[in-house]
Amino acid sequence: MSLFDVGDIVGALHEARAEWRDSQKRSRDPGGREFPSREALAGIVESLKGALFPMRLGPPDLRHESEDFYVGYTLESALQALLTQIKLELGYMSRHQPRAPEDIDVQATAAARAFAADLPAIRRLLDGDVLAAFQGDPAARSVDEVLLCYPGILAMIYHRLAHRLYRLELPLLARIVAELAHGQTGIDIHPGAQIDAGFFIDHGTGVVIGETAVIGKRVRIYQAVTLGAKRFPIDAEGQLQKGLPRHPVVEDDVVIYAGATILGRVTLGKGATIGGNVWITDDVPAGANVSQASLQNAPQRRAA
Amino acid sequence: MSLFDVGDIVGALHEARAEWRDSQKRSRDPGGREFPSREALAGIVESLKGALFPMRLGPPDLRHESEDFYVGYTLESALQALLTQIKLELGYMSRHQPRAPEDIDVQATAAARAFAADLPAIRRLLDGDVLAAFQGDPAARSVDEVLLCYPGILAMIYHRLAHRLYRLELPLLARIVAELAHGQTGIDIHPGAQIDAGFFIDHGTGVVIGETAVIGKRVRIYQAVTLGAKRFPIDAEGQLQKGLPRHPVVEDDVVIYAGATILGRVTLGKGATIGGNVWITDDVPAGANVSQASLQNAPQRRAA
Amino acid sequence: MSLFDVGDIVGALHEARAEWRDSQKRSRDPGGREFPSREALAGIVESLKGALFPMRLGPPDLRHESEDFYVGYTLESALQALLTQIKLELGYMSRHQPRAPEDIDVQATAAARAFAADLPAIRRLLDGDVLAAFQGDPAARSVDEVLLCYPGILAMIYHRLAHRLYRLELPLLARIVAELAHGQTGIDIHPGAQIDAGFFIDHGTGVVIGETAVIGKRVRIYQAVTLGAKRFPIDAEGQLQKGLPRHPVVEDDVVIYAGATILGRVTLGKGATIGGNVWITDDVPAGANVSQASLQNAPQRRAA
Amino acid sequence: MSLFDVGDIVGALHEARAEWRDSQKRSRDPGGREFPSREALAGIVESLKGALFPMRLGPPDLRHESEDFYVGYTLESALQALLTQIKLELGYMSRHQPRAPEDIDVQATAAARAFAADLPAIRRLLDGDVLAAFQGDPAARSVDEVLLCYPGILAMIYHRLAHRLYRLELPLLARIVAELAHGQTGIDIHPGAQIDAGFFIDHGTGVVIGETAVIGKRVRIYQAVTLGAKRFPIDAEGQLQKGLPRHPVVEDDVVIYAGATILGRVTLGKGATIGGNVWITDDVPAGANVSQASLQNAPQRRAA
Amino acid sequence: MSLFDVGDIVGALHEARAEWRDSQKRSRDPGGREFPSREALAGIVESLKGALFPMRLGPPDLRHESEDFYVGYTLESALQALLTQIKLELGYMSRHQPRAPEDIDVQATAAARAFAADLPAIRRLLDGDVLAAFQGDPAARSVDEVLLCYPGILAMIYHRLAHRLYRLELPLLARIVAELAHGQTGIDIHPGAQIDAGFFIDHGTGVVIGETAVIGKRVRIYQAVTLGAKRFPIDAEGQLQKGLPRHPVVEDDVVIYAGATILGRVTLGKGATIGGNVWITDDVPAGANVSQASLQNAPQRRAA
Amino acid sequence: MSLFDVGDIVGALHEARAEWRDSQKRSRDPGGREFPSREALAGIVESLKGALFPMRLGPPDLRHESEDFYVGYTLESALQALLTQIKLELGYMSRHQPRAPEDIDVQATAAARAFAADLPAIRRLLDGDVLAAFQGDPAARSVDEVLLCYPGILAMIYHRLAHRLYRLELPLLARIVAELAHGQTGIDIHPGAQIDAGFFIDHGTGVVIGETAVIGKRVRIYQAVTLGAKRFPIDAEGQLQKGLPRHPVVEDDVVIYAGATILGRVTLGKGATIGGNVWITDDVPAGANVSQASLQNAPQRRAA
Repeated sequence: MSLFDVGDIVGALHEARAEWRDSQKRSRDPGGREFPSREALAGIVESLKGALFPMRLGPPDLRHESEDFYVGYTLESALQALLTQIKLELGYMSRHQPRAPEDIDVQATAAARAFAADLPAIRRLLDGDVLAAFQGDPAARSVDEVLLCYPGILAMIYHRLAHRLYRLELPLLARIVAELAHGQTGIDIHPGAQIDAGFFIDHGTGVVIGETAVIGKRVRIYQAVTLGAKRFPIDAEGQLQKGLPRHPVVEDDVVIYAGATILGRVTLGKGATIGGNVWITDDVPAGANVSQASLQNAPQRRAA
Repeated sequence: MSLFDVGDIVGALHEARAEWRDSQKRSRDPGGREFPSREALAGIVESLKGALFPMRLGPPDLRHESEDFYVGYTLESALQALLTQIKLELGYMSRHQPRAPEDIDVQATAAARAFAADLPAIRRLLDGDVLAAFQGDPAARSVDEVLLCYPGILAMIYHRLAHRLYRLELPLLARIVAELAHGQTGIDIHPGAQIDAGFFIDHGTGVVIGETAVIGKRVRIYQAVTLGAKRFPIDAEGQLQKGLPRHPVVEDDVVIYAGATILGRVTLGKGATIGGNVWITDDVPAGANVSQASLQNAPQRRAA
Repeated sequence: MSLFDVGDIVGALHEARAEWRDSQKRSRDPGGREFPSREALAGIVESLKGALFPMRLGPPDLRHESEDFYVGYTLESALQALLTQIKLELGYMSRHQPRAPEDIDVQATAAARAFAADLPAIRRLLDGDVLAAFQGDPAARSVDEVLLCYPGILAMIYHRLAHRLYRLELPLLARIVAELAHGQTGIDIHPGAQIDAGFFIDHGTGVVIGETAVIGKRVRIYQAVTLGAKRFPIDAEGQLQKGLPRHPVVEDDVVIYAGATILGRVTLGKGATIGGNVWITDDVPAGANVSQASLQNAPQRRAA
Repeated sequence: MSLFDVGDIVGALHEARAEWRDSQKRSRDPGGREFPSREALAGIVESLKGALFPMRLGPPDLRHESEDFYVGYTLESALQALLTQIKLELGYMSRHQPRAPEDIDVQATAAARAFAADLPAIRRLLDGDVLAAFQGDPAARSVDEVLLCYPGILAMIYHRLAHRLYRLELPLLARIVAELAHGQTGIDIHPGAQIDAGFFIDHGTGVVIGETAVIGKRVRIYQAVTLGAKRFPIDAEGQLQKGLPRHPVVEDDVVIYAGATILGRVTLGKGATIGGNVWITDDVPAGANVSQASLQNAPQRRAA
Repeated sequence: MSLFDVGDIVGALHEARAEWRDSQKRSRDPGGREFPSREALAGIVESLKGALFPMRLGPPDLRHESEDFYVGYTLESALQALLTQIKLELGYMSRHQPRAPEDIDVQATAAARAFAADLPAIRRLLDGDVLAAFQGDPAARSVDEVLLCYPGILAMIYHRLAHRLYRLELPLLARIVAELAHGQTGIDIHPGAQIDAGFFIDHGTGVVIGETAVIGKRVRIYQAVTLGAKRFPIDAEGQLQKGLPRHPVVEDDVVIYAGATILGRVTLGKGATIGGNVWITDDVPAGANVSQASLQNAPQRRAA
Repeated sequence: MSLFDVGDIVGALHEARAEWRDSQKRSRDPGGREFPSREALAGIVESLKGALFPMRLGPPDLRHESEDFYVGYTLESALQALLTQIKLELGYMSRHQPRAPEDIDVQATAAARAFAADLPAIRRLLDGDVLAAFQGDPAARSVDEVLLCYPGILAMIYHRLAHRLYRLELPLLARIVAELAHGQTGIDIHPGAQIDAGFFIDHGTGVVIGETAVIGKRVRIYQAVTLGAKRFPIDAEGQLQKGLPRHPVVEDDVVIYAGATILGRVTLGKGATIGGNVWITDDVPAGANVSQASLQNAPQRRAA
């Protein structure tokens, strides 16, 4: 006698899966899973972190004299693993637009090579982010503390890698990498967001930055800031239009305090300061200082 | 000579524990721990995720032809482990209301069986949640991406399992499962919340949904939305009254944008749209569109 | 033929590291890494949790009769590991203020001993936090549930340990411990914050408490509350002044509801109640009840 | 300054590898390793053990009602992994006899299918081996004890699997599996050896059974018995001839006591008993009883 | 289409298991596995090794000041786990002689307590074995080296624990522990063998010591020595008689060199020396020196 | 009430340890363990195997283009770990001959450097051993099979490393490494044995080679061969004399078949062949062919 009637439940779950496949017009594909793996990408990014910052995020027993050996071996291994994941994404995509396996291999290899070649530039960008955090936070004691402790830096390491994948037309890999950071930090940056040098997010929990946001140099933001879309653009037939710019443009040297919400394709001009909790859906001129108080006197742009 | 005087500290901690037990009027129970285990439940839910979505959340080497084998074995194993945890909760509860071990076994087995029998229905509900997310987010590229990447879906997998446990009068297990999701996603849904089909949470960090909230079909909410209690109902003797409905009712097709706070047993009518950051403590009629702007003109329902 | 030109990338990364070291005026130090390890501290705190609450957070097979054995062995092992981390922090610090290794050893041992001796007091404080949570949340069913499930309690276990390290002038270790909690709970408490007995954070995601905040007895706060700095004090030469009190003082028995923002060195008087989402930059008298509604009628203290 | 001159040693090892490749007339093949993996095979055999004896060698929490689920999932997974290893061996072999990748795939799949189809017969053979051990050892208390404890049975599980691989012309996989058993038990059975039903090895350490040995039904041998080759057959040109029968034939119901050495293509007739430590290089008639004592009186067949 | 026809093979294996159960007259027992676990016992013995020799076989970071804490916690945990395994063996045994579960619990607890109480005496015996090895091997440099490196000592740690289990009428547990040592060292000591103080096995591979062997004080043996049974005693009805003394008695101070074979219930008298490779089936008087050479001149006791 | 009286047993074990320390005239040293670690050495040798044979014993995903990176990083890491173990051995030794910590550091570093510098030569020796095995075994199909499967090769990798440690006066490390191989292969080679190029051990279980054995080029031996000491040399005062040559000298091109025992400082002349199971305690001339048969006719050198 069975304790749980597992056989029956297996049958019912089998049926539920069949319904789902039918509703999605999917054939029961004969082979195995062909979707990139979250676990694999987590391991790859972990290795890349070590290869980018070997003495601080690499293995604790590493010494300067074998830094390059470590970097070389770790990179090779991580890039091989990434190449596998790239092929999985391209293969998955080709269900809709069938392509020859050879083409997928060629494109995957080209993407992996381009990604690899960009790593030194990414390291330099991240060095700038670390410096920005160190200079922007009175509590920071050293650049090393910033690199090891700050969730905002962790989020940027993931984002700068994810954004590169996004630009290489690997949106699934990019998204998975972004969500790995989101889960660890509470900072949700869409991999499509373009973020220039010297970006610093303090505290960070609850930050949301949308896909078409454009952020200039030396920008600083605090926890719970949203750079979101006001509404989704809809085309003549009422369909959601994808890819249109719908998130804010934040120019150089802007500071946005905690809880502020900036919605739509508005521009925050160079050097503007946005106070905590303000709600903005229009352009802000360069150098402006928008706060709760200032908004009291400008009811037409009144926020909460 | 001792480096840390560990013996002394052990003694002092021993005394602190004794004080605590005295203050809580607990005897020093002779046996071992009899509390459900967070680690065990994390493993159980991980297995159930695989059994519910074998080809996408199960092991990477799984193939269609052995899907049912995998589901059957994983279910059996997860349900056995769950049964153990159920007995621990019931045993823990029976400290206050002593019961015969046989009764606990009977009730535990019945609960585990009922939970198991409900899994196919839970899978169908989750399929609906995935579809809702896919249709509600212009950035989503496929239902598979949604299932693998979206924290809102992860939270709902945990919630739908936790809610089933809650309804089986296993509030501790339910709560632990809910907190496992909270820790990973920043989405805090009380396992008591009743959520109908097609629910979608975008971004999600900071969402809080209370114990007696009731949510209809096809509802969509964004990050930092609170469905909370306005105040705690107190009975004639000044005691907190438990179990009374104190959180919002959200009817079908409602959309609530980021940062909105809805407090108390209010009803958001069918199809209403609640704008970002608004603060609501009264009913909203069906189809209404409440935004910061609209509230400026309606001071009696004025929010922040 | 190379697939990824790893050799070239290794060279370019080598150069990027050299540039960074030059920009930071660092010599290429001959030895290995000398920075405390996040992973090591995670393990140490995990052990201390078990030593503080052996029957509930220790190993599942523990029995009362060997509680002290477990506590003693775990403590010894955790304190040894902590001593190693303390030496790493002091050694790292001494790059700027060179000191004899013997001095570092003496100071490290003294710090570890002081930390160890304080553990029983920390356990008593945490017992009070657990009771406060149990009494403050109508949904809580038992003190055990609170200890095992509530992220606010998890955050306080980490904070009370981190704060002790901070006061022992080990700010890096303290910060790492604080970020471990932040990553798991979304609650960001600076280890410098002084928090008295019976503190309860409900839900918690998005809470930020700054370095010089002072919190009294029996205070209760909800998710997304910020106790922040209004602006950074700048000295006569325009330099950021560190260490000055710049965060709120919260007196005994204050309650602060979700989303409220309190900025600057203001005082919330004994027993005050701060409503959800309010924005406060001035003192609040004892017993006051500040809400969105009350602020409407007091424009000079008007918040969002 | 370098502590170990690792760079120099890396260079010298690089040179040593180049010399080896030159001496072996190997090109530096561009890709990665293409040799079966000992670790992978260890995992595969571990899974197959569970699939063959689910309730005794499978997972401890397995219950009868989900036995088939477990067997099905484990088999599928192990066979997939085996297929990968088979392709590696065939690919490795094709270095010498180049073949089209498609041919390798077809042959590999056929081999894996044939191996899989034979598993039920292998289980029946092993059941017979267990019974033989139980009946042959006065110390054995149950068939379950035999299956779980006896190294002779462990060796036979590995051998019967390895022999099947050997017959499928996968000698490398077969050899690796055999050495896995040798390492654990000290029993060294070449995978080519043909062993009929009901075979029992007691104690086992030091047993060696050669490639072309043929063993009948119900044979029993003890530790340190060698069934070896007397000399290697050499052809007209002085080359070692491979594949010729050069090890003993042991007919049904033979018993060979500890330390006996039987060399060359001799036949031990049905029911013969070979005493401990005797040295045999000639045929033994059916039913004979050869011991140290008997050999004293038969100098022409004198042994040690 | 299925790659491996796993469904068919699962069916065929199901049938093979059914045949086996029928042949063994076993019902398909409803529950799960009820046999002691080799993995569990390996872990228990590993813990006991640490508890017996904390500073040398315990965790590397252990310090003298917390030795007792470690020993206490490790013991408690190992004994609990052992109690579980004892119940499994007694439960398994009770299939043949049905007993009340309460009786099993009482007997299991008594056995575990008796085992625990004997550990200090076992430690003292093992100290004597270590000293014997140190004094008997000219290559040994320290007692610590002996404890950490010598397979003969490893085998004796396992044997002295296994023998205690054997005497507590737990033959399955005893056998599993013995085979754990056999697999690691190639030394096969039946747990029933009685071995007095100061026993030393050098090199050890291939040693076999039978169930009823009795070994005195300060005995030393070398690799490949067998203390075996000459033949199995058979009763009047031709059944194997179990439990009769059938292995050698080795008196105090005997030395047996490599490869010697001693068979049957013979006695090697006090202080006798047995040369390498000799074959003995008769008593040897005290103080005798039996070697290959001596046997040449004594044809009636001639060996190989 | 306690189940096991753990406290009492802890006390009794404490007393047993105290007795042991007293008997060994050891003070209770204040610190922690200072003995090399078997686990650490197992990891070091595993890494060295990979560094010596990267494409075959290194990680499966390694590619030729990053071979040197892998070798460099792995070496650096393994040598650092080895340096730690060397210091532990020297520190342990200095209990008897107290030395300054600085001297230990200098000597340890010199030893580690010398060991490292010898690795390329060790690789070349091992290449020769692999070739010898391939040429000497008719069943070997490729040099790669030999390297991956043959226990005799595994034993030689460990021996050649252990012997280097032995010559650097690190006998404990050397012994531990030797026992790691003994445990895996049943081949027991004392690290002091001098073995020249092209050595091949077939099957291997039960082989014992003593500390002062000297083995020439191209020697081949089979399972259960002993190269042992006849008796221990004793000095005028009856003390065992250590370090005197007491094991055989085996000249170039000798073959020794299975089970042969060669005892004492005898010489097996160049090209001699020793048959299976023979017992030799005298010199054998070059080119001689000693077998059981030949010994029959030479009673004065008669063996078993």
